[in-house]
Amino acid sequence: MTKGITSRKEDYSQWYTDIVLKAEMADYSPVRGCMVIRPHGFEVWERLRDEIDRRIKSCGVGGKLHKNAYFPLFIPESFLKREAEHVKGFVPQCAVVTEGGGSVLEEKLYLRPTSETIMYDMYSKWISSWRDLPLLINQWANIVRWELRTRLFLRTLEFLWQEGHTAHANHEEAYEETQMILNDIYTRVAEDFMAIPVLRGKKTPSQRFPGAVDTYCIEGLMQDNKALQMGTSHDLGQNFAKPFNIRFQDKDGSLKYVYQTSWGVSTRLIGALIMAHSDDSGLVLPPALAPVQVIIVPIYKSDSERASTINAARKIANSLADEEVRVEIDEREEFKPGFKFHDWELRGVPVRIELGPREIEDNNAVLVRRDTGKKQTVSQNNLPRTIHDLLTAIQKSLFDRALKFQKDNTAETNDYEEFKKIMEERGGFVWSPWCERPECEDKVQEDTKATIRMIPLDSEVQEGKCIVCGAPSKIRVPFAKAY
Amino acid sequence: MTKGITSRKEDYSQWYTDIVLKAEMADYSPVRGCMVIRPHGFEVWERLRDEIDRRIKSCGVGGKLHKNAYFPLFIPESFLKREAEHVKGFVPQCAVVTEGGGSVLEEKLYLRPTSETIMYDMYSKWISSWRDLPLLINQWANIVRWELRTRLFLRTLEFLWQEGHTAHANHEEAYEETQMILNDIYTRVAEDFMAIPVLRGKKTPSQRFPGAVDTYCIEGLMQDNKALQMGTSHDLGQNFAKPFNIRFQDKDGSLKYVYQTSWGVSTRLIGALIMAHSDDSGLVLPPALAPVQVIIVPIYKSDSERASTINAARKIANSLADEEVRVEIDEREEFKPGFKFHDWELRGVPVRIELGPREIEDNNAVLVRRDTGKKQTVSQNNLPRTIHDLLTAIQKSLFDRALKFQKDNTAETNDYEEFKKIMEERGGFVWSPWCERPECEDKVQEDTKATIRMIPLDSEVQEGKCIVCGAPSKIRVPFAKAY
Repeated sequence: MTKGITSRKEDYSQWYTDIVLKAEMADYSPVRGCMVIRPHGFEVWERLRDEIDRRIKSCGVGGKLHKNAYFPLFIPESFLKREAEHVKGFVPQCAVVTEGGGSVLEEKLYLRPTSETIMYDMYSKWISSWRDLPLLINQWANIVRWELRTRLFLRTLEFLWQEGHTAHANHEEAYEETQMILNDIYTRVAEDFMAIPVLRGKKTPSQRFPGAVDTYCIEGLMQDNKALQMGTSHDLGQNFAKPFNIRFQDKDGSLKYVYQTSWGVSTRLIGALIMAHSDDSGLVLPPALAPVQVIIVPIYKSDSERASTINAARKIANSLADEEVRVEIDEREEFKPGFKFHDWELRGVPVRIELGPREIEDNNAVLVRRDTGKKQTVSQNNLPRTIHDLLTAIQKSLFDRALKFQKDNTAETNDYEEFKKIMEERGGFVWSPWCERPECEDKVQEDTKATIRMIPLDSEVQEGKCIVCGAPSKIRVPFAKAY
Repeated sequence: MTKGITSRKEDYSQWYTDIVLKAEMADYSPVRGCMVIRPHGFEVWERLRDEIDRRIKSCGVGGKLHKNAYFPLFIPESFLKREAEHVKGFVPQCAVVTEGGGSVLEEKLYLRPTSETIMYDMYSKWISSWRDLPLLINQWANIVRWELRTRLFLRTLEFLWQEGHTAHANHEEAYEETQMILNDIYTRVAEDFMAIPVLRGKKTPSQRFPGAVDTYCIEGLMQDNKALQMGTSHDLGQNFAKPFNIRFQDKDGSLKYVYQTSWGVSTRLIGALIMAHSDDSGLVLPPALAPVQVIIVPIYKSDSERASTINAARKIANSLADEEVRVEIDEREEFKPGFKFHDWELRGVPVRIELGPREIEDNNAVLVRRDTGKKQTVSQNNLPRTIHDLLTAIQKSLFDRALKFQKDNTAETNDYEEFKKIMEERGGFVWSPWCERPECEDKVQEDTKATIRMIPLDSEVQEGKCIVCGAPSKIRVPFAKAY
């Protein structure tokens, strides 16, 4: 235990909570199951959100781009009950407003657990012609789901997310939309930005979004060998268009129901980010997402040394800021350098620069990587270039490390006893043949708590025997215990 | 009535609603009193929000900058009741969650009508030393107030806003914070960005925020001569620090309560923007906030003319986009130029470029200003420069026009009969002497519906006689009917 952080080996779950609280990413709120996202956590979320938002706005289908909008928090009870699967899936986990302005409401209002119903009622009003399609709308909003067991970022009563909701004239375009979001936005942000390699595929029917025809997803592997669903993209077919009566007059004059999609990622991603990269010394942030990429710690013994060291630090900071590096100097007088090193390690800053009289005299700087702890002395000449290269190297190295971890913890087996042994002893992804019957999926979950994370999209037919029942099977799927 | 827009003269209130709906800024939702902010309205909000956010993050006091965070939507009933004025002011207009996850809750949860109480409970946990001060946090969030009479953007059950909440070691710094927010952020955004001149001052005790020691505000004048409060900044003193027990150990070892401020602006600003500048042809957007600043409408008769015109339009659009102008081409084939002109007028685009074969041949372009309707033919040489200058001129001209309107509709009188006459016949700001007693303030409101909008901060003592009771008075204050 360093700085009050439980080690991963000792208690992974407690380690995670310690990191979130000590690195001041979030805090428990006095309302059960809700959290406060503190400034440090919120800055990471803002970077992630802005990157996702930028990508959403710069793509689209049918010659249009996605646009943001905002719909009400409240959903009338009658709306939520209009799509049969949707009501089953969401009503039991809703928070309900029954009083407003001192009076009991005539119709209960549910706080949005997702916004399909409130949005599609408007869509039915806005869409009348093929000219109105595609309709490509995204919303950033808070969501409420009355979870019983909660964990900071991963599962909270209230969370923040984006939810895209689109309507199309035909199914091909709707399908194209679901894949574009999954491949060009969610996968790219996860891998290139969060440095987390993901598996992509289609959920089994039992794991689908309530009301969807198909749910596509990306899944990452955490350091405790549990999978975490990081984003979903739903092909809704006409399942909502019909109860919400969203129809358009096509070019040939005929009246048709639209095809729809919805897709989202949430503040849960921050949980994934923490669990994928951090270590027993604290948070490890990928440079692309770190609010502060470089922290300069001035080292001095006397007041005159302090002045010259801080001066030199400011010169370096300015030269880095000019080259778009997010840099800060820790000028706090009340703390010693050793305390500061630990403090910034805890907060996950990718690079620390140690700068003392000797470095200044030699025109050098000491750089320390957060991810590996590796220390090197470099020249101050071309420092911005050196730092840029180092940040790029760290970003890549975090991804490579996570990919190696994922590969090292992926197994393949046709034998159910071996399967159970792996699941019990190690976890990770285990690929096995499956006959596609829900009974066998359920049996695995009962026996091992593992679920089928997805059906790979591009897998060729692989004749085999179902790992559970031995019946002929055509696909192999990755099982894992999951958050 | 053009394009289904009622004229201002005929029915100002209906004109406003027509503009909001027809320009697709917002729409009524099926939930009473809630609105949907449509993509066009949301893009304007995003520009406003980003500008405010940028300014908030780049300023602060005590050597620190403001940071964003996120606190829960839910407020336990007991919290809201801890500050006496606060409970009186807000509890009657709250929405209340009484059921969650299928069960009745033990303690009712109020949806935040403002976040002082939920935030300050955390502050009491986070603040223990002078080193923790100042604490400068801002939040962007949705807010719920159970209003009976609602209007799109201006007063809705749910709205979006930012709320800053700061804690300081002494009152001087807290006061400095309230003034910095009012002067450097709210006033500058209103005047420089929204092109709306504002009056600044302090609210009378009866108009204060519930729980505040002092409330500072900015107020704009709308085209119907009613004032609209556009932003407030509250000096909370120690009114919340005491019930929430927010104390710090000062440098001398003594334990002290903090001094606090809170401040906010909301989507109501979009309502102000519409009412200040728009006309009977539709929305008029200041260039600084317009999602599209320049719309190019190609004019052609044949298919071959179409091809060459659109080609020329694209070249112009690229040259403008390269110089950071937000430009679009209306290539829709199903509509004639005349329809497009009206459509973009309705949506408030500041500049229209008309481009036909003749203009192309002469290397010219026809520019039409949305604010004045003025048309001019200019050379395509240096067009980005010409457009930049025009956009700057329009931004300034909108402010000047609004300032002239404000001045033309500001009166000064010492005579109550004249006061009442002005209020009844015209409205606007009327400056009159006031004895500072709430009874006289109330009397004016009863007689005329006008309220004191503020007490100017820097006004010198002006001996006079109260406009209502005739008692000696030391200040003159602006009265107005208000939204």
